[in-house]
Amino acid sequence: MDFKLTANDKGTKARAGEVTTDHGTIETPIFMPVGTAGTVKAVHQRELKEDVNAQIILGNTYHLYLRPGLDIIEKAGGLHKFNGWDRPILTDSGGYQVYSLSGTRKIKEEGVTFKSHIDGSKHVFTPENVMDIQRTIGADIIMAFDECTPYPCDYGYARESMEMTHRWLKRCCDRFDATEGKYGYSQTLFPIVQGSTYKDLRVKSAETIASFEREGNAIGGLSVGEPAEMMYEHTEIVCDILPKDKPRYLMGVGTPENILECIALGVDMFDCVMPTRNARNGMLFTSEGILNMRNEKWKDDFSPIDPNLGGYVSSFYSKAYLRHLITSKEILGAQIASIHNLSFYLWLVKEARKHIIDGTFVDWKNEMVKKVTTRL
Amino acid sequence: MDFKLTANDKGTKARAGEVTTDHGTIETPIFMPVGTAGTVKAVHQRELKEDVNAQIILGNTYHLYLRPGLDIIEKAGGLHKFNGWDRPILTDSGGYQVYSLSGTRKIKEEGVTFKSHIDGSKHVFTPENVMDIQRTIGADIIMAFDECTPYPCDYGYARESMEMTHRWLKRCCDRFDATEGKYGYSQTLFPIVQGSTYKDLRVKSAETIASFEREGNAIGGLSVGEPAEMMYEHTEIVCDILPKDKPRYLMGVGTPENILECIALGVDMFDCVMPTRNARNGMLFTSEGILNMRNEKWKDDFSPIDPNLGGYVSSFYSKAYLRHLITSKEILGAQIASIHNLSFYLWLVKEARKHIIDGTFVDWKNEMVKKVTTRL
Ligand SMILES: [Zn+2]
Ligand SMILES: [Zn+2]
Repeated sequence: MDFKLTANDKGTKARAGEVTTDHGTIETPIFMPVGTAGTVKAVHQRELKEDVNAQIILGNTYHLYLRPGLDIIEKAGGLHKFNGWDRPILTDSGGYQVYSLSGTRKIKEEGVTFKSHIDGSKHVFTPENVMDIQRTIGADIIMAFDECTPYPCDYGYARESMEMTHRWLKRCCDRFDATEGKYGYSQTLFPIVQGSTYKDLRVKSAETIASFEREGNAIGGLSVGEPAEMMYEHTEIVCDILPKDKPRYLMGVGTPENILECIALGVDMFDCVMPTRNARNGMLFTSEGILNMRNEKWKDDFSPIDPNLGGYVSSFYSKAYLRHLITSKEILGAQIASIHNLSFYLWLVKEARKHIIDGTFVDWKNEMVKKVTTRL
Repeated sequence: MDFKLTANDKGTKARAGEVTTDHGTIETPIFMPVGTAGTVKAVHQRELKEDVNAQIILGNTYHLYLRPGLDIIEKAGGLHKFNGWDRPILTDSGGYQVYSLSGTRKIKEEGVTFKSHIDGSKHVFTPENVMDIQRTIGADIIMAFDECTPYPCDYGYARESMEMTHRWLKRCCDRFDATEGKYGYSQTLFPIVQGSTYKDLRVKSAETIASFEREGNAIGGLSVGEPAEMMYEHTEIVCDILPKDKPRYLMGVGTPENILECIALGVDMFDCVMPTRNARNGMLFTSEGILNMRNEKWKDDFSPIDPNLGGYVSSFYSKAYLRHLITSKEILGAQIASIHNLSFYLWLVKEARKHIIDGTFVDWKNEMVKKVTTRL
């Protein structure tokens, strides 16, 4: 993997860059659609490329490991071959999903035991086998196995958990560096900063993570329920410590506003289920503001969903038609809304990048934050 | 509307033709995807055109009348403008759906009272208002309001019901002919032959319907549970009576085999929910046979769904990937399977047409029936 800084904004800490992998180049700042089980829900692979303009997608290790399972993915020649997505893929470590199975998982120094939500079968994730699993899935960017603490989290637990995450990172790196990709292309490992909402822990974790000198770094444990201002505060603390010459990935963030604010703090990569999950519930993000498609007011509004975006879906279908589909629980409603919301997120980060390069980021960002937080 | 016969098969009663409407020409024999509530479930309008190659789609009067409702459709400028499908549309009369609401509907000479499945509200369909409703929806081809009898049906009920359907047809024609299209293009009315599975009733009904001399004719009340041989028998009786120079539409039929056999009997137009409904349940129709995608055997079959069809979906996605999506209940599974099955149905009727014109229909049909009934 290679990272090139293209531009630094003068008014903020925002940057524009390029991440190059064996599956192609990603222009940062970037938003990565979440493809949980090897599919970005309700969106065809062709649409992801041609309509959404996605440059990289996520896969969830937990889901892929359980179904279709590693044997099938390996036989296919990796996830890219299995699902036909030939651009870069990033996989999470599976930790986040496993911790949310609260009643059924046990976290120990060695690793985590958990039960499948599908058939109740017992499994173990360790720093080592999670590296092996992601090697087999064949992601271009592999995430370290960490513990993501909830919010709020008491100081003692947050510190101990962070320290274990650091010890696990050592084990992840050792295993990752001792193994090779299975399909002939390079893979890279991103470590994850933890430390909950404690400044001293975040500083300590960022310094520790930076000292591993991997090719990129991630910030985890935020956007888990804390106030936005707190999320920004800790993102800034961590970004200021993480090396400038490597991409910074803020995990699981967030709303369009969150993304704009965190770009301004120096984040390069984002992912979130919000654009697709909210789409399925009829909530649309547009260049003019937020639309609740269940609202009566759209029932005879025959204007396009968002003509400013360009693209088939957002300009072809009307608000009234989409409202009809969503209220009738038609699958096409989820399809249209998902493509639209993802297209909007990708449009937003592309515009941000353009304005960073042009040197007009701050004004544009402040204007845009107003728009994207307006409820229409 | 205009109908031109292009070719008559020598070995069977199959024909190739062209139906021309103000929204374009339909090459017959044709299969019409069902777009119940103004959407062919899980398929984008662009995909219907470019992948499925649909030439005409159906809308359901009952569903559209209840939701989004006639006020919205009229404000939009008709269903074509509302859903963005600019090729021909045929609407059913709503009768079929209403009769299936068994507990809650009452059939009288005047019309049918029924309760909405959505909110329990009370409504009345009459031959007259169903013409008005379809005028407002803006279908190119409008269906007469009939009573579709169940199978089995005793002779007395079948005869009385048929006679009422004929009286209703007179009222439909009177209303239709006294009104005009609302959006500047022509609409045409197809009457429907009934008579259950009684030969004398079918003969009587076909003769009566033919005597109305509309631009096309439909056969209803078949494919409602009777054996296939019985359906073929009655289709043949009716086709032999209906005029040769007008298109014949066999409503609600059927499997690929049913369609091939009924093309051979002189049917020009078909519709059925089977390709889309079965798709959502993981049943695929392909040029080599039927695939149950839930079957273990596909889990590591990385070959395309159906390379013979051409088209993005059927050649891009593998059986193993589709199986994974279907067993994981991912929306994309329904999308892929729906596009594929519809593409296959449209491919099948296009091939049939080609072989009718080439004079090689019988041999091809017999060969094809073997393939499409094979369970792979
Ligand atoms: Zn999120
Ligand atoms: Zn059917």
